[in-house]
Amino acid sequence: MTTKTLSDHLNWRYATKKMDPAKAVPQDKVDAIVEAIRMAPTSSGVQPFEVIVVTNPELRAQIATAAGGQTQITDGSHVLVFAAWDNYTAERIDEVLALNVDARGESPTLQGYYEGLKAAYLPRDADVNYAHAARQAYIALGVALVAAAEQEVDSTPMEGFSPDAVDAILGLRERGLRSVVLLPLGYREPAGDWLLPMAKVRKSRESLVSQLD
Amino acid sequence: MTTKTLSDHLNWRYATKKMDPAKAVPQDKVDAIVEAIRMAPTSSGVQPFEVIVVTNPELRAQIATAAGGQTQITDGSHVLVFAAWDNYTAERIDEVLALNVDARGESPTLQGYYEGLKAAYLPRDADVNYAHAARQAYIALGVALVAAAEQEVDSTPMEGFSPDAVDAILGLRERGLRSVVLLPLGYREPAGDWLLPMAKVRKSRESLVSQLD
Repeated sequence: MTTKTLSDHLNWRYATKKMDPAKAVPQDKVDAIVEAIRMAPTSSGVQPFEVIVVTNPELRAQIATAAGGQTQITDGSHVLVFAAWDNYTAERIDEVLALNVDARGESPTLQGYYEGLKAAYLPRDADVNYAHAARQAYIALGVALVAAAEQEVDSTPMEGFSPDAVDAILGLRERGLRSVVLLPLGYREPAGDWLLPMAKVRKSRESLVSQLD
Repeated sequence: MTTKTLSDHLNWRYATKKMDPAKAVPQDKVDAIVEAIRMAPTSSGVQPFEVIVVTNPELRAQIATAAGGQTQITDGSHVLVFAAWDNYTAERIDEVLALNVDARGESPTLQGYYEGLKAAYLPRDADVNYAHAARQAYIALGVALVAAAEQEVDSTPMEGFSPDAVDAILGLRERGLRSVVLLPLGYREPAGDWLLPMAKVRKSRESLVSQLD
């Protein structure tokens, strides 16, 4: 499908500021991005988040309002809402264990591993567990940004929104979920995008990376 | 360099349990992984973390001890330590602003944007800012996992370690950094790796993703 490398994808993408409301992302491209999220690694394979794909225009308008009116949410065709688990529970971990047993067969090692995970996670404060779950969602976000670029789909990761408002719009708290980051998908409108012509800015390797040999 | 897709990379990689101590990752492959981390997107382009590449055997032995003896740290050839900023400060944000001005030229918009960021970040508790910085490091972790797979380098993301101990070993707290995740790099030793022959386990799309049309 592509001869492009990860480096090409990282250089192609940017946080699109203006999307073209006339262009919708085709379903197969959304599917490829969602599949990359599904396959993204997470701590102990727990995948402690859900992704809500919102195309509904009413809901997107409400989410845009909760995000300071950022137009990519309504000009794009899809918004991915990454929603982390509000806590770890025995039921949630047991479901992961069951999935592992289905795929790998019953084993005392597997059982013991996830029992150990429950012993470690369940006594912790919900906030500690939520913070851990949110980090896992960010691994998937990183993978999703690469996936969108591979599909030549523009995307704009957004933290500037009211999580409480988005949780209410989508009924997330009732499902034990808390919105952590939004990812509108669409196609850039070059004429209206002030960021597109600007140079990509990154720190030098020297300032970001040190080596201890 | 490759005709492989992101999907191929995500399916190839796994959390390698046994690495071959006789095989070192070549420098050009480490460079490619580090470069992907450097180009990974972060909130407002702040890149609020550093990466310490540890090859020193003594230090890796100490880190392994702080990580419950996980052997990939010493059997692999490199360990990437992702260390998030312990807080946002005016100096740190001003450095990012200066980098932007260098690349894009002086502009009131740019100035105003990062002044706004300081106004939002600096009054917050250090823990809130650290949590935010740590999430950005996890975006880079997600990208690094893809980068390693593209280079056909094995990697094992690790959260099971004492951050305080690793911070002390590497002198991170004095530099305003806190270790958040480790990523040993190396090459799998198939005969000794119990996870390699096992099926990859992921939730179904239906259980992870919902759509609101």
